[in-house]
Amino acid sequence: MTTHKFEHPLNEKTRIYLRVESLLRQAHVASCFAENHQYQLFFRSIFDLLEIFEQIQLKSELAKDIEKQRLLYRSWLDVDGVDQVTLRSLLDEADRTHSALMHAERFGQSLKEDRFLSSIRQRFSLPGGSCCFDLPALHYWLHLPLERKKHDAQKWLNSLQPLSDALHLWLKLTRETGYFRSQIARNGFFQSDAEEANILRLHIPMEFGVYPMISGHKNRFAIKFISFETGQACSQDVSFDLAVCS
Amino acid sequence: MTTHKFEHPLNEKTRIYLRVESLLRQAHVASCFAENHQYQLFFRSIFDLLEIFEQIQLKSELAKDIEKQRLLYRSWLDVDGVDQVTLRSLLDEADRTHSALMHAERFGQSLKEDRFLSSIRQRFSLPGGSCCFDLPALHYWLHLPLERKKHDAQKWLNSLQPLSDALHLWLKLTRETGYFRSQIARNGFFQSDAEEANILRLHIPMEFGVYPMISGHKNRFAIKFISFETGQACSQDVSFDLAVCS
Repeated sequence: MTTHKFEHPLNEKTRIYLRVESLLRQAHVASCFAENHQYQLFFRSIFDLLEIFEQIQLKSELAKDIEKQRLLYRSWLDVDGVDQVTLRSLLDEADRTHSALMHAERFGQSLKEDRFLSSIRQRFSLPGGSCCFDLPALHYWLHLPLERKKHDAQKWLNSLQPLSDALHLWLKLTRETGYFRSQIARNGFFQSDAEEANILRLHIPMEFGVYPMISGHKNRFAIKFISFETGQACSQDVSFDLAVCS
Repeated sequence: MTTHKFEHPLNEKTRIYLRVESLLRQAHVASCFAENHQYQLFFRSIFDLLEIFEQIQLKSELAKDIEKQRLLYRSWLDVDGVDQVTLRSLLDEADRTHSALMHAERFGQSLKEDRFLSSIRQRFSLPGGSCCFDLPALHYWLHLPLERKKHDAQKWLNSLQPLSDALHLWLKLTRETGYFRSQIARNGFFQSDAEEANILRLHIPMEFGVYPMISGHKNRFAIKFISFETGQACSQDVSFDLAVCS
């Protein structure tokens, strides 16, 4: 049975984190340039990331969040029943990640200063604007050998590594706090309390033909299932698995 | 020797035509969904096309241009030295294309009325906005079987077939009017007259490490070659091939 996997952030900061995770993944996948049009996806991801970096102070937010996790995990040192080997290895990772983050440049700084990226950024978002006559420098770059293009992409992505490491650590530890439990949405509706939760994770069997519309915040949320084919609220019971991650 | 192929439109209408051609090609390539992230490219192309359709009356422009070509080719009927078999077959194609164009809906009309496409269009252009929580309906659609997704994509693309056929015919006939000739840009600069030209086509050997910046209009144009690595005007002679298409 194919299952539709779904994640929903319960606050604005986590919403940004998940978007950034998705953009980093896209940029990484596209950076192999295995397929002719992947450069579009690559540069779009990079420019979307720059736009997000200009909107919020992602670095300080993330540093605070990693620090919170470090303090929590430190409080478990020498506590009976806690696997100390795993804990210490995790704390080492958190220390390294936090330190790299604190020493990193402002996110996107070197990408913004890159002459080539700056020269193509503005026109790239025009509808159909990546034609050769709109972006002759990009068109030249596309004709360079694959190895050179991969090398450039790697250089650009490397500058985001401290962000990537910190974000992945925070999301990994956050996701691990939740456990999937079977739930039933009676008449397509489910609501529940959450305690300081950041992410809801859902597995929804495709056979119901529905997707979730979720509203809520860190302490309370509601899920309404919508039928894909009709676009209307679903009135049947929907069984799904839910994990609440804080 | 790898050659950098380049096209430059000499008027705003042709600029739009070339952008639309590029978007249609992208949508078509991406519609196989062979690779996980191709849906991004597919929907981006479709939404960029809709934005262009909202800005200009593409259908009437294109109908006028195809009509001009038909009249020109009709004037060659029964002219000595013109291959009449080829000419008649071309005229047949132009007649069919023009007629299909005249009977077509306003470009993009059925795409704009499509409930699914409308529901995802607005958020799709947010930076990182194609996450599942931003576009739950899209996320559901992505989990559908490949055959269903291809079928939907084909249905959407089919509605653009009259546009695609007419545009390809016009661009093919326009490109065929030009013949490549060797040229030299002394100190990286070249200028020339053109007669009612629409497109310049260039083949530039990669070894010069340059890309062209072109200014001009249908009757006169100038090409300045820029060094990719320095971003400065190139001061050496550049040999290239040029076709002027009207």
